[in-house]
Amino acid sequence: MVQKEMLRSSGNRLSIGEYLIERLKDYGIRHVFGIPGDYVLDFYDMLYKSRIKVVGTAKEDGAGFAADAYARINGIGACCVTYCVGGLNLVNSIAGAYAEKAPVVVISGSPALHKRVNDPMLHHKVRSFSTQKEIFDQITAASVVLDDEQIAFQKIDDALAVCWKSKRPVYIELPSDMVSVKPQYPYINKSTEEKSNGLALKEALKDAVSMLNMAKKPAILADVELHRYELGNELIKLMDKTGIPVAVTILGKSVISEMRSGYIGVYEGGMGRPEVQKYIESSDCLLMLGTFLTDVNLGFSFKLDRSHTIEATSEKIQIRYHNYQDILFPDFVKGLVKSKIKKRNAKLPDMPAKKKLSTKTSNVPINAGRFFLRLNDLLEDNMVVICDIGLSLFGAIDLIMHKNTEFIAPAYYTSMGYSVPASLGVSLANSELRTVVLVGDGAFQMTGMELTSIARQGLSPVIIVLNNKGYATERYIKEGEYNDIQDWRYDKIPEVIGKGWGCEVRTETEFVKAWSVACSNTESFSIINIHLDPYDNCPALKRLGKKLKTGKRP
Amino acid sequence: MVQKEMLRSSGNRLSIGEYLIERLKDYGIRHVFGIPGDYVLDFYDMLYKSRIKVVGTAKEDGAGFAADAYARINGIGACCVTYCVGGLNLVNSIAGAYAEKAPVVVISGSPALHKRVNDPMLHHKVRSFSTQKEIFDQITAASVVLDDEQIAFQKIDDALAVCWKSKRPVYIELPSDMVSVKPQYPYINKSTEEKSNGLALKEALKDAVSMLNMAKKPAILADVELHRYELGNELIKLMDKTGIPVAVTILGKSVISEMRSGYIGVYEGGMGRPEVQKYIESSDCLLMLGTFLTDVNLGFSFKLDRSHTIEATSEKIQIRYHNYQDILFPDFVKGLVKSKIKKRNAKLPDMPAKKKLSTKTSNVPINAGRFFLRLNDLLEDNMVVICDIGLSLFGAIDLIMHKNTEFIAPAYYTSMGYSVPASLGVSLANSELRTVVLVGDGAFQMTGMELTSIARQGLSPVIIVLNNKGYATERYIKEGEYNDIQDWRYDKIPEVIGKGWGCEVRTETEFVKAWSVACSNTESFSIINIHLDPYDNCPALKRLGKKLKTGKRP
Repeated sequence: MVQKEMLRSSGNRLSIGEYLIERLKDYGIRHVFGIPGDYVLDFYDMLYKSRIKVVGTAKEDGAGFAADAYARINGIGACCVTYCVGGLNLVNSIAGAYAEKAPVVVISGSPALHKRVNDPMLHHKVRSFSTQKEIFDQITAASVVLDDEQIAFQKIDDALAVCWKSKRPVYIELPSDMVSVKPQYPYINKSTEEKSNGLALKEALKDAVSMLNMAKKPAILADVELHRYELGNELIKLMDKTGIPVAVTILGKSVISEMRSGYIGVYEGGMGRPEVQKYIESSDCLLMLGTFLTDVNLGFSFKLDRSHTIEATSEKIQIRYHNYQDILFPDFVKGLVKSKIKKRNAKLPDMPAKKKLSTKTSNVPINAGRFFLRLNDLLEDNMVVICDIGLSLFGAIDLIMHKNTEFIAPAYYTSMGYSVPASLGVSLANSELRTVVLVGDGAFQMTGMELTSIARQGLSPVIIVLNNKGYATERYIKEGEYNDIQDWRYDKIPEVIGKGWGCEVRTETEFVKAWSVACSNTESFSIINIHLDPYDNCPALKRLGKKLKTGKRP
Repeated sequence: MVQKEMLRSSGNRLSIGEYLIERLKDYGIRHVFGIPGDYVLDFYDMLYKSRIKVVGTAKEDGAGFAADAYARINGIGACCVTYCVGGLNLVNSIAGAYAEKAPVVVISGSPALHKRVNDPMLHHKVRSFSTQKEIFDQITAASVVLDDEQIAFQKIDDALAVCWKSKRPVYIELPSDMVSVKPQYPYINKSTEEKSNGLALKEALKDAVSMLNMAKKPAILADVELHRYELGNELIKLMDKTGIPVAVTILGKSVISEMRSGYIGVYEGGMGRPEVQKYIESSDCLLMLGTFLTDVNLGFSFKLDRSHTIEATSEKIQIRYHNYQDILFPDFVKGLVKSKIKKRNAKLPDMPAKKKLSTKTSNVPINAGRFFLRLNDLLEDNMVVICDIGLSLFGAIDLIMHKNTEFIAPAYYTSMGYSVPASLGVSLANSELRTVVLVGDGAFQMTGMELTSIARQGLSPVIIVLNNKGYATERYIKEGEYNDIQDWRYDKIPEVIGKGWGCEVRTETEFVKAWSVACSNTESFSIINIHLDPYDNCPALKRLGKKLKTGKRP
């Protein structure tokens, strides 16, 4: 995907803005999300006239979430905004991309350098001209200001390389009078590729293989970095070759098909299925690949015993209590696949049977439990499920992702409002995927009106609003009037936006009918407003609520 | 308003959370805007059970804008959110409050200190536990973490004092396990009041008075700090006593009634009325009180000649090219009022006559020019006008604010989406004011659904959407498809939210009718969707657009 060499010779004939656009294309970026503003308008217009498609959102945080989700499917994403009033609206979504390793390139315009003499109060300025950069320093892996044409080209290359390697967002600030500037001297990219230390890699692999082969009950816990570094197929090879069973975390869900033999389900401490919990926590050699050891991933409970773990991530390789440096994560995973690991024939816990539900559906009020069972039954091969926070996320633990299905959720940073704008990014990243969004009413009220951007692009995601009239997860921790919100007619939003199809659902029968209409609507988004009882909930969330209520507050 | 002494003796009997609430009340805070989340839930519940009213918003940025506008009317405002996924959604609105000096107290929950051992990946964490504080360091005048019960009380007092004095936002972070902690030893507030240096003040006043008395054509440019420090009445005394004419900036508009004799209008360089521009720019002694010398305030053009200016703000007193230290802004203004300044009888430029428009209204399509004329005619004494960015702001320059009318606009930071959530804050800050919001369609799509929070509070602002189908201000700088947005039926939003009244308007006749219905609707918000031509515009904006297009890009 990355054609690093391509522009070594031609870079010197392009302006800074043009070069940035070329490099975005090299990395496979075909869409940039954002909103124009005066300080970024020249670059925005340049982008608009390039082969990259500019995708407008209603608000900048929507652009951030869309770019994050786009990156999760496409490998990398980008957004482009104006100075401060634009960029500072991105902070939460880019912080989420940082926390969950979604590689997003943030491009922001800023006031012309020649206008900054004597520090004037130009509109959108907060404290100093560097305020925005200093904020992005906290939530990106690299941040650069293209304020010098002799080093701007190298800065662009370096920032994009960091984004690609670390899978974390980077910040590129382009003052408005630098967009069309060309360098005085030809630019030559001087960066070099990082490589693993071969001897360290060899020793670490030997160490790991010996531990795996000595174990009685090895298991693999697969997480999101396998997806980010495109190592899903390597994991499949490793499973097939060794017979070691694989569980995933909720953040890593769908890194491989959940219908594959050897796959035992989502591990999430006491929140996941008990048989998966038991298998993973009793393993005497747990190989954790690309794991985020977050409280959510561990179900707010599991204490790892490092004497029994091998942990490989992009940040470190740790075996029991010792660490290896200078080893690239993909090299370690590929090395494992090629190593001599004993073939096992493990007795696996049963997966819940994927059985067809009765076509007779019930006319009693729908509840969360039945909804997820029914949805599981209806999901098709080409569907991607995007979950927002709360019931949407925890209920979805037990959805079974098909062969090509993707599952996307901000399961660590857990920012409400992710899902609707994310569906814009996903639908554009891969137009063959049919996007299904599960979103609570509280989260929808935060960013759901980004449906307007989806409407403008003529996309057709299916939006399911799990309308339980408030912040239901919180009701289990502490109940108060502050958990109630206004009960919107989400199904009437198409009338406001002027596009889309919506309906209300109160029973399972109505849901099945609505789903069928929504799936056949490929002209516009569909929105299904499912009325749930405010205290109805899925089993995982009930367990979590109890834990949070009775234990110490997180 | 501030009862600093009150809690000196009782402070030691309260927990950290309780003390914070007491101090907020001392400063006159009666409402706190926000959204609960698990890390802040205990404090949120404590706040909810206190005499302070907790006001929920759909998203945190709405809470930030509401608190900012509340502060502009009430003197100080506050919002309360959860860690990172909440707080980082506030960054843009609090940056705006910093830029325009709106004193807002930001309270954020954060993970319990006892859970942070070994730096675990707790949900909502970005890079480190201090990421959020480091971001708020950039956009607040003080930021504190209440992580030690022996100094927490002093930190609360210090932060609130900074907020009150600097009129800028402050950040108070409260880890979830510190809310109910009481101090081991009694707390004694050790802070002291700042005072002006009497000799410096005397010299500066003498210097200023002498310059004013020597001048042939003195003038006063009044700006927003007069409002923030509640010095409007002092300005009136100064006008009455000296006869020196007063203009205001767009940010300072309505610091005094615009129908007062001696008032000549809004100064905004080439964007304001030419006679005001001429008067101010030709003054041989311009007394600038509480001014923000921003590009917008100066109409993107005026170059000040400091040989003819006296500038007094909370940050400095500058006369010609020399500065005075250690003088408090209010002391200087009050000192001027008491000084012997020559009484003038200046020949003032004419104010546009405030004449009644014909009651016969026209059935031709409404345009921006006629809309503002008509609105000017219809505005009543108890109304407050809140303007969003673009046509809404620039068109409103020539609205004439009545006796009690307030005018609120983020006229320097110019963040779109300010107005609708701001109306929530204004309506609660002073229930006797009737709130009128002027908002473009682009800005409305960013935050307009905060109408849901307005509906929950049973408030009745009149929302006027100047629907020109896109980012119209930008069309004058650079036109492209990216300036178009979806044409919503804003008037149908009441059907989604389940409250409110809306209608569409295409002619002046329809507007007058709609206005009358909206004004008599005191049960709920009203929303008027005014269809304007995408290229229709007000004269000020046309001039600005031309300037931005032909001059160097800002």
